Amino acid sequence: MKFYRGMQVKHLSYFRANSLFEDFMLEDKNPARTELSKLGEFGLIKHIAEHIKLSNPSSVKGIGDDAAVIKYDDGKQTVVTTDMLLEGVHFDLSYCPLKHLGYKAVSVNVSDIYAMNASPKQVLVSIAMSNRFSLEAIEELYAGMLLACERHGVDLVGGDTNSSRSGLIISITAIGQADKNEIVCRSGAKPTNLLCVSGDLGSAYLGLQILEREKKIFMENPQIQPDMEGNDYLLERQLKPEARKDIIAQLGENGVQPTSMIDISDGLASETLHLCTESNVGCRLYENKIPIDEVAMLRAQEFNLNPTMCALSGGEDYELLFTIDIKDHDKIKKCKDVTVIGHITEKAEGANLVLTGTEMLTPLTAQGWDALLKR
Amino acid sequence: MKFYRGMQVKHLSYFRANSLFEDFMLEDKNPARTELSKLGEFGLIKHIAEHIKLSNPSSVKGIGDDAAVIKYDDGKQTVVTTDMLLEGVHFDLSYCPLKHLGYKAVSVNVSDIYAMNASPKQVLVSIAMSNRFSLEAIEELYAGMLLACERHGVDLVGGDTNSSRSGLIISITAIGQADKNEIVCRSGAKPTNLLCVSGDLGSAYLGLQILEREKKIFMENPQIQPDMEGNDYLLERQLKPEARKDIIAQLGENGVQPTSMIDISDGLASETLHLCTESNVGCRLYENKIPIDEVAMLRAQEFNLNPTMCALSGGEDYELLFTIDIKDHDKIKKCKDVTVIGHITEKAEGANLVLTGTEMLTPLTAQGWDALLKR
Repeated sequence: MKFYRGMQVKHLSYFRANSLFEDFMLEDKNPARTELSKLGEFGLIKHIAEHIKLSNPSSVKGIGDDAAVIKYDDGKQTVVTTDMLLEGVHFDLSYCPLKHLGYKAVSVNVSDIYAMNASPKQVLVSIAMSNRFSLEAIEELYAGMLLACERHGVDLVGGDTNSSRSGLIISITAIGQADKNEIVCRSGAKPTNLLCVSGDLGSAYLGLQILEREKKIFMENPQIQPDMEGNDYLLERQLKPEARKDIIAQLGENGVQPTSMIDISDGLASETLHLCTESNVGCRLYENKIPIDEVAMLRAQEFNLNPTMCALSGGEDYELLFTIDIKDHDKIKKCKDVTVIGHITEKAEGANLVLTGTEMLTPLTAQGWDALLKR
Repeated sequence: MKFYRGMQVKHLSYFRANSLFEDFMLEDKNPARTELSKLGEFGLIKHIAEHIKLSNPSSVKGIGDDAAVIKYDDGKQTVVTTDMLLEGVHFDLSYCPLKHLGYKAVSVNVSDIYAMNASPKQVLVSIAMSNRFSLEAIEELYAGMLLACERHGVDLVGGDTNSSRSGLIISITAIGQADKNEIVCRSGAKPTNLLCVSGDLGSAYLGLQILEREKKIFMENPQIQPDMEGNDYLLERQLKPEARKDIIAQLGENGVQPTSMIDISDGLASETLHLCTESNVGCRLYENKIPIDEVAMLRAQEFNLNPTMCALSGGEDYELLFTIDIKDHDKIKKCKDVTVIGHITEKAEGANLVLTGTEMLTPLTAQGWDALLKR
């Protein structure tokens, strides 16, 4: 397996274990290189468009005109979100393969659509890249984006391609739809509501720590190739996060309408505080209820990090955090991979974390990555 | 008047002459500077959101959740487009004030919506900036964007803010609506259709030449302040282009439904070729019909540039290029600021320019800026 910039990765078996990952296999041999200047902007757009099929009835017209055309059924509302990813800020191509990056870029956008309890239908993709990227590299990026589009039933209907003087920049807009009554905002949480989260937290952050450590070793001595053995899950969480389409489906099947919802991009603490602020409530979050993967626990210890802090402030898990009416407690038990981690209180009680063992309350604070790194 | 990076501009009277431009006046005194790090991302979003009011009934929910919510009337289709602007590639802050840049960024996006014969309703704005930008600078940028939004009846409903390691990056997605039967694509031109264009062409490119020349003089000797006298119109065309809402309104009032349409961002030649390719037709474009401003003619001579070439390949005019049925000839005469510049032919005849005086045909080619600069 070959990574970009000559970094070889051993034991990255997660790329092979899962059938979905087969699509992510990179060739070991030196790939072809076609300069983008040979195609020009319109040639590149045409080339990209050739790989794209529209599948949603609402996608009337895709790439190739001044704008895409979308038609929604009567009674539906349109939900739209946008996110920008910058090289050197949001991703590092020395360990993030372009196909994974494309997959992640689409995933984090459709995750915002799911967080509104809506279904993503279309994306528009703008990219800017310097001439250090070849056509083959851009194809890898789009292959990853289209794989994510396929997984989420989304059409790529438009975008913009630009040259950049330095790094790669990706800006994606995702469009979804939902019945008016189904849309869930951040502002509907009420005291006594249960606070729930999907999946586990902190793994994506620990995956990043492993990649950064291996990069550092590689930079100091390029003869030592990274050893990722046993870290498949954490690396996958960082490099190829999955937007939780399945959770939205389960909530629908079990008749659970969340009262508020948000996806976890900045960490559990920051997102919980967003829900509390927008809903004008407080909360009590139990440390011992926070779902953390076993390997994540072990790796956190190795890095001398507190696993709870990784979950609270690590971010990039792209799990769904939501509140439900307490009468839906039995229904939520039927949803796989959902954990009740606390409950909503009156605003005056504040937003607090109940520490394991001590039962002491400590105020939740959104520390972000900087604070975590300074520990 | 103070430009960024200490560049003073004399005689830039166009900033004052037009009442709209009063909003663009910059203070001469040193403005306040609030570091963005003081606010943080969420503080910045909150600060930006405070200046934004929603006015379209279709804008159900704006900034502040995972996604914006939009609701369209039955029978309407949604039109969506996105464009990215990069510092050093699309703009130069040494002569482009941030307020103008914001105005232009929104204008070029809604121009794509008008080019579909649709009405823009919402925009999403993603920006990335380094710490050389203060809060006040970002406020200037958004003030320009919101002024353009106001002019076009558009709501700013969402976006993303990021830190960048180098320059300023702006990515805008515009959303519009139209009746299904009103939407105009690039693909509907038919032989005998008339080829029409709004406004005049080449001025934006000549405005850029003037700014580049004055920048060069200023860089060589910072004591010499730029003299822009007599070039107001050309500078305005470059720094603050107007999307042609008025042309779309006139076409509607006069009952003209274009058969194909595109906006001119890359130059008349490139856009005409797009219409011909997408419609599978040829065309005959008359050099002596191309509308060129008188001052643009004079300045082109000073720069030793062919005015026709400036119109054909200069770009950034953001005028509308469209085709109409020949039976609408009398109706189009009633539209102000529209010129018939040629007609559509069978594909076999090719896409040709009829040279003034000689009546000779020469094939239209999209040379782009590079070719123009090499002359």
